[in-house]
Amino acid sequence: MDKQYYSYEDFLADAKVLTQKIDWQFDCIIAIARGGLCLSQLLGEYYSIREVYSINTIGYDESTKLEGVTVFNVPELRSVKSALIVDDIVDSGDTLAEVLNVLGKIYPDITFKTASLFYKKGAKIAPDWSVQEAQKWIAFFWTEDMKRNI
Amino acid sequence: MDKQYYSYEDFLADAKVLTQKIDWQFDCIIAIARGGLCLSQLLGEYYSIREVYSINTIGYDESTKLEGVTVFNVPELRSVKSALIVDDIVDSGDTLAEVLNVLGKIYPDITFKTASLFYKKGAKIAPDWSVQEAQKWIAFFWTEDMKRNI
Repeated sequence: MDKQYYSYEDFLADAKVLTQKIDWQFDCIIAIARGGLCLSQLLGEYYSIREVYSINTIGYDESTKLEGVTVFNVPELRSVKSALIVDDIVDSGDTLAEVLNVLGKIYPDITFKTASLFYKKGAKIAPDWSVQEAQKWIAFFWTEDMKRNI
Repeated sequence: MDKQYYSYEDFLADAKVLTQKIDWQFDCIIAIARGGLCLSQLLGEYYSIREVYSINTIGYDESTKLEGVTVFNVPELRSVKSALIVDDIVDSGDTLAEVLNVLGKIYPDITFKTASLFYKKGAKIAPDWSVQEAQKWIAFFWTEDMKRNI
């Protein structure tokens, strides 16, 4: 599959587009780790939201895809009414669907919405807001740049 | 206080220096949110560590400093032996000291070490590894760039 390098500048431009699209107010941001971590930090700063949490999943390997997705390190959300879940890319949608499923069961009174930089057509669940359709393998700067001699 | 803009390029260069300094192997990375989130994502990718967690603290306000620091959203670390705690800056050291205190009590058998991009002289605790001494107010790219017209 073709590879598309996605620089910090690309990311910043798309993160700005994402904030223009998100027409909703929320109390906290939940990053799906690792993919959503940088994005959550910039969005937290942009929206002046200090309640930036993360959640972990297992189930997606470099080459194989396990049957299920396990969600763990669910953040404490007792005083939260609305949370934006962020990730870098919604690929199959398995991870996002299971994160929503787990959070929805534990916190049925919280409204969860989702945002990602990339989405793929055919994902089992579409994020509420996203910026680009992924048609190549995205080589994100957080993966690539530490190996480059800049 | 003078302000120093800290760009993504500055960050990337320092993150690389940090990896050259860290002469230790660890099983997982714990980001102190929000400050350590981006750094944890790049380090997780660099070390091929998928176990990147976050931890939250309250106690540091824009202008005032509360008496204590409350630590919450402690990650599940049952199978972990060694964890690197990361943050952007060790300022007074209150946050890092309390994170170490809380984690050490819950997980007395895990070795915790700490890394940050910046440290301040006079902090009550020094990180095991860091890159720059902060002599100005650091305006990090994750705070500044979303507001800039680039």
